[in-house]
Amino acid sequence: MSAAFPSEMRVLALENYHEDLNQAVQNLHVTQKPTPRPGAGQVLVQVEAAPCNPSDLVFMQGLYGVTKKLPAVPGWEGSGTVVASGGGLIANWLKGKRVACGGQSESDGTWADYFLADAKSCVPLRKNISFEEGASLIVNPLTAWALIDAAKRGRHRGIVQTAAASQLGRMILRLAKDAGLPLINIVRRQEQEDILKALGAEFVLNSASDNFEAQLRNECHRLSATICFDAVSGDMTGRVLNAMPKRSTVIVYGVLSYSPAGGIDGRELLFGQKQVRSFWLTPWIRNAGILKIYQAFGQIQNRIADGSFATHVRQKLKLEDVPSGLIEYQRQMTSGKILIVPPQG
Amino acid sequence: MSAAFPSEMRVLALENYHEDLNQAVQNLHVTQKPTPRPGAGQVLVQVEAAPCNPSDLVFMQGLYGVTKKLPAVPGWEGSGTVVASGGGLIANWLKGKRVACGGQSESDGTWADYFLADAKSCVPLRKNISFEEGASLIVNPLTAWALIDAAKRGRHRGIVQTAAASQLGRMILRLAKDAGLPLINIVRRQEQEDILKALGAEFVLNSASDNFEAQLRNECHRLSATICFDAVSGDMTGRVLNAMPKRSTVIVYGVLSYSPAGGIDGRELLFGQKQVRSFWLTPWIRNAGILKIYQAFGQIQNRIADGSFATHVRQKLKLEDVPSGLIEYQRQMTSGKILIVPPQG
Repeated sequence: MSAAFPSEMRVLALENYHEDLNQAVQNLHVTQKPTPRPGAGQVLVQVEAAPCNPSDLVFMQGLYGVTKKLPAVPGWEGSGTVVASGGGLIANWLKGKRVACGGQSESDGTWADYFLADAKSCVPLRKNISFEEGASLIVNPLTAWALIDAAKRGRHRGIVQTAAASQLGRMILRLAKDAGLPLINIVRRQEQEDILKALGAEFVLNSASDNFEAQLRNECHRLSATICFDAVSGDMTGRVLNAMPKRSTVIVYGVLSYSPAGGIDGRELLFGQKQVRSFWLTPWIRNAGILKIYQAFGQIQNRIADGSFATHVRQKLKLEDVPSGLIEYQRQMTSGKILIVPPQG
Repeated sequence: MSAAFPSEMRVLALENYHEDLNQAVQNLHVTQKPTPRPGAGQVLVQVEAAPCNPSDLVFMQGLYGVTKKLPAVPGWEGSGTVVASGGGLIANWLKGKRVACGGQSESDGTWADYFLADAKSCVPLRKNISFEEGASLIVNPLTAWALIDAAKRGRHRGIVQTAAASQLGRMILRLAKDAGLPLINIVRRQEQEDILKALGAEFVLNSASDNFEAQLRNECHRLSATICFDAVSGDMTGRVLNAMPKRSTVIVYGVLSYSPAGGIDGRELLFGQKQVRSFWLTPWIRNAGILKIYQAFGQIQNRIADGSFATHVRQKLKLEDVPSGLIEYQRQMTSGKILIVPPQG
């Protein structure tokens, strides 16, 4: 094992969860911590970039599916260079490589100078992918890939998605095109409609328009859209499910509305044989199998390299500037992502 | 083919659907009609008894999953004697037999002197089962059987059900006991609690009690109740799903609340990997396969014969007394069933 790293590192430590995000962010401070030493099958990654995703905010609110012992370091993904291996075939092979890596449920996250990763959760980055691009290789792209995979495996002939203008929604747009599946995109503002049309979206509906439900019903039936990816929840879940053809499924993968899913018409549910399921990346990765993951990251790196998965970075923040930057971020999530770039100097 | 039946018969004919059930019932009249002649694979059943189920009321409201050309004869099941066969191995074998039979989606129902049945949808009645008992052999018992079958196939270790004091809920109670599966019964009145306890129910919760949600959560986790059969819908769907352990499923099979399913907590749905599905008997029968159906009716006839599936009949009505009787019926569905007994004299 190499010792080419300092014995102490800086991390962003969350002292307390708080449902009010503004309060939660106040509980985030830069502190010093011993740099962890990788065990067998682990590697130490010197972090170059780590994004702030919606799931990080939910984690800081204490509302995520995983809570960690406090103080905890947030950050579900990032990119960097493997500077040490704790031993084992894959871990040793990764040493010196540029990688994307996923945050662990049980240990500290990526918002730090260094990150202790399972070797199996590291994806070597191709040469034509920068650290900044590679920092967001996992959470959004893999979710988009897994959802499209679910549509293919279920032999659905058409797809609906809500919150279609989000970073993740745009990836779904691209992957649906790759799969040759028609996609109905639901947004709630004219500017989002324009963005998606500029990106080549064929079907875009504005949920604020008067005849939204009727349009949605028509398009869903015309295009046999029997699966919906819903990041909004609340009444939107029911509005879409009710409009879809028989034997349709809504997969809820986000709760942007912060409201309980509802408005599901009983007759549509019963006589339409419809269903509501959910998608969460953490168990999906655990169950997917290594071949599927490799297949996914092959396609994802192609799409990042050719620019079609470009994640719009609004602001790069050093560790110490993150708490103040996050308050601004949550106000307008679709306008770009915050990237945390720890390196000093 | 025999001609041992008159050329004309009496039927209850619905002239118009109406969402208001009181209005719908006014549109029901006894009329004369030519007695149908069975084609190949069909039999003519002289109806001895036919129940009025909730699904018949929903049909008359025009809200069922199947609508028929008007005027239409309601009645999704009944019992009687096969008086004529249109030819074919099964149809000929059934001739002269006492049978239970299921209403067809495309043709007239059982609320008539005679009913034209698919031979394959007839179940020969054992000698120790009366026509009155056999009249309700299909809709409720087969739904209960299919739901318990879903619990077994999904390897669920415990079950929750809503509207547990209904006729169907009591059958679920018995079949869960047969299967050795603990069952949490949700009711909304003290008297229903008493009825179920007298029937041997171990776990009964009243949804009107103050600490219902906490009790439900405790019992569901203690008994690993990861599947719920929900006949109520509305907020009840969410209340139960939210209280259940991870990877739980609510199967909605009724809409007694007449409200859209809702109140489904996004975090429970996402991080709990939960889902909402539905059950409708019509497609289930189509997909079940003959062996499963035989297995089901074997157990169902045992339970009817030993009295544990007793359907409490409140009132027997002749065809001409049905319209007025139905108005009374809908006021208090759990207090017993209306049985239509067509024979004159």
